[in-house]
Amino acid sequence: MSKLKFKVVPGAVVAPQGFLASGVFCDIKRLGTGKGSNKGQKRDLALIVSEVPATVAGMFTTNQICAAPVKVCAERVQGGAAQAVVVNSGNANACTGRQGMKDARAMTALLAKQLHIPDEHTLVGSTGRIGVNLPMVNVKEGILAASQLLGSDVACADEAVEAIMTSDTRPKQIAIEFKLGGKTVRIGGMCKGAGMIQPGMSATGARPAALPQGLHATMLCFITTDAAIEAKALHTCLQEAVANSFNRITVDGDMSTNDTVLVLANGLAGNAELRTRNSELKTFQAALNHVTLELAKMIVRDGEGVHRVVTVRVEGAKTIQDADAAARAVANSALVKTSWHGGDPNWGRIIDALGYSAATVVEDRVDIGYSAPGSRKILWSLKRGQPTKATFKALCAAAAPKEFDLHIRLNLGKAAALMYAADLTEAYVDYNKGDVTDPTTLGG
Amino acid sequence: MSKLKFKVVPGAVVAPQGFLASGVFCDIKRLGTGKGSNKGQKRDLALIVSEVPATVAGMFTTNQICAAPVKVCAERVQGGAAQAVVVNSGNANACTGRQGMKDARAMTALLAKQLHIPDEHTLVGSTGRIGVNLPMVNVKEGILAASQLLGSDVACADEAVEAIMTSDTRPKQIAIEFKLGGKTVRIGGMCKGAGMIQPGMSATGARPAALPQGLHATMLCFITTDAAIEAKALHTCLQEAVANSFNRITVDGDMSTNDTVLVLANGLAGNAELRTRNSELKTFQAALNHVTLELAKMIVRDGEGVHRVVTVRVEGAKTIQDADAAARAVANSALVKTSWHGGDPNWGRIIDALGYSAATVVEDRVDIGYSAPGSRKILWSLKRGQPTKATFKALCAAAAPKEFDLHIRLNLGKAAALMYAADLTEAYVDYNKGDVTDPTTLGG
Repeated sequence: MSKLKFKVVPGAVVAPQGFLASGVFCDIKRLGTGKGSNKGQKRDLALIVSEVPATVAGMFTTNQICAAPVKVCAERVQGGAAQAVVVNSGNANACTGRQGMKDARAMTALLAKQLHIPDEHTLVGSTGRIGVNLPMVNVKEGILAASQLLGSDVACADEAVEAIMTSDTRPKQIAIEFKLGGKTVRIGGMCKGAGMIQPGMSATGARPAALPQGLHATMLCFITTDAAIEAKALHTCLQEAVANSFNRITVDGDMSTNDTVLVLANGLAGNAELRTRNSELKTFQAALNHVTLELAKMIVRDGEGVHRVVTVRVEGAKTIQDADAAARAVANSALVKTSWHGGDPNWGRIIDALGYSAATVVEDRVDIGYSAPGSRKILWSLKRGQPTKATFKALCAAAAPKEFDLHIRLNLGKAAALMYAADLTEAYVDYNKGDVTDPTTLGG
Repeated sequence: MSKLKFKVVPGAVVAPQGFLASGVFCDIKRLGTGKGSNKGQKRDLALIVSEVPATVAGMFTTNQICAAPVKVCAERVQGGAAQAVVVNSGNANACTGRQGMKDARAMTALLAKQLHIPDEHTLVGSTGRIGVNLPMVNVKEGILAASQLLGSDVACADEAVEAIMTSDTRPKQIAIEFKLGGKTVRIGGMCKGAGMIQPGMSATGARPAALPQGLHATMLCFITTDAAIEAKALHTCLQEAVANSFNRITVDGDMSTNDTVLVLANGLAGNAELRTRNSELKTFQAALNHVTLELAKMIVRDGEGVHRVVTVRVEGAKTIQDADAAARAVANSALVKTSWHGGDPNWGRIIDALGYSAATVVEDRVDIGYSAPGSRKILWSLKRGQPTKATFKALCAAAAPKEFDLHIRLNLGKAAALMYAADLTEAYVDYNKGDVTDPTTLGG
């Protein structure tokens, strides 16, 4: 992984040249507050627009039950060009049948008309409760209002990111700046997601031939850049970036119907257009990797009820599939996750999860240890299947921080994989059980 | 499934002729109470003994990390004969290396010596925390004491079942009586298990070629019968019984290192020995199915923190593997399980889990509904992917009982599978996070 340093700049999705954003409240959850009563309500509809046509790439949930906006986007990004995105929270427009498809297309058509751009250059994202048709009167009012408020101030990005939040407790956004062939280039991004988080995205939404273990978020991510890059190269870069970020996180092991990552590159930085075999692509890739990984980690840290974030690092697996299966089994085990919550360095639950994973594991080869995030100074609790002399007190101290790394070495081969994972807390359960007497508390 | 009625009789494992049991406290958790201070302490070592040699069959965890007692039993049951079992709670004797194997064998050797029977006819089971060597001084004292207390009173079975409990809040045992070729036959059983529950057992402990989705308990089950049945037929019957009971339950999706089911048949009922193609085997099979299913359901009902038990019934899958994968995905989804806890009839989370399962699912074919346990009077919330006109209030009422059936029809084929599942509660999290300042609260 590149150790390039990137300068962080303000403005998130509007930081790159030529991008505008806005966010409004149009009562998509239909809380019954009615027109004009939107003071104090969280915004729920966002726009992101490039002043000029951009190249586009997207990755989408591999869940077989996928939302109407995902279907619309997966088809349109094939064209390689886009200019605007409309996103709503409060309703996933998933499992909404033909009406859902009609509504998703009506959203893009209205936006295209407002902006005087081709419909096929307009994309759509939704997140919220599944199985409820969108209140299109509200949505249309929202699109009209948001179109009037588009701007490139930092405040516009802030309003847009607020509008895509659901159970998120804080906005998640970033922008960085770097040099590419002598030109200053920026990448900005915003995302949302806190529950139903274990994305497994592919470029088409089609399932890979060999299904990865435990694919499973609603997470939405929108990335903007003023780099000039052809669509094919942008697509390749996005695949690598997602594989190492959003597809490596889990909060609760549930993969959403709506997971979407879109990147728009409008070329206004004026660099020589990046192409697939271009040597400068590496710099762009490193920058995109940085943006997606930072956003992905923000999702885990703000996961529903999450108290601790654990990076599960598996090394020495026979195959990459084994490494992935081992890391996901540990990252999604209810018993391992509750032990993290308790600060209990319980290696028995970890080795138990390894043993039932699809990975080949041999008891007297397994090492398990703890370190500070990113550190190689590891306190081993288990070496070759045997408890070390590390004291329970020392191990508790290693498992006590809000973030730590869990190192697992299978010592059977050379393959490695990691997962950014979260503990399982009473707060997660309490949030997600909701209250049926107050259906507005019921999540996606 | 047979609708035969069986007469329930008292005595559990000592109900069949010629079986004895006992249970003692020998401080295996080493709570430091010392000798003589065992008043009020839960028993932690049990014996089950047949007065005459019995045929035996066993099934064991397919976790690659498997405990020493599992290894000893998996080998010995191959011989087809056994006469005594020693079981301890408080320590799993798992991940205990060579010393663990030595300790497991020392337990059987001591019992064999006490009972004057061959060592190879003696079996062993353990449950409790992983990775700690057994306190063999205490264990040996326990075996000596328990050997003196063997009896066939109901109280003896009660003491034995108490001794195998860990986080169980109540003892789990049953005995039934039925006729076989004019003779009165009894089957008795006891089991334990509340967390780390999603057994996937095979006869040898070896993994099946195609790994079932999400195999994962420590559950221990010991069954006694006075039926005369040859070992091979007993083995076949146990496989079918476990496939339809213990291998269909999940509390938390974690498969243990210690899962074990053993059945001993001593022939004292005097029926003509049952053999593989014997027509009377069906009656025995039905009786064994009944005992294992009742015991399996007791485990789910008493699962850690469990408030609701849900039978997930998948029908219309393309293949049996699809049906199993679909049922397990729903039964183990954190979001589905928290919605059950909340009494929220959230079909969106259910169809989401179906969509990311390994099963083929088509959105506009899926039906989802609710009924009372075992009833075919179903209130549908979703038909062919579309919400029905059932009211939210009516659906909440259907999802409110302590036990209900969840019906899922994929409408793609003829395969069916079910899972006996549990909700996910704050109490589960609280119990399993434990308290590192009081390590006696830390679970397996």
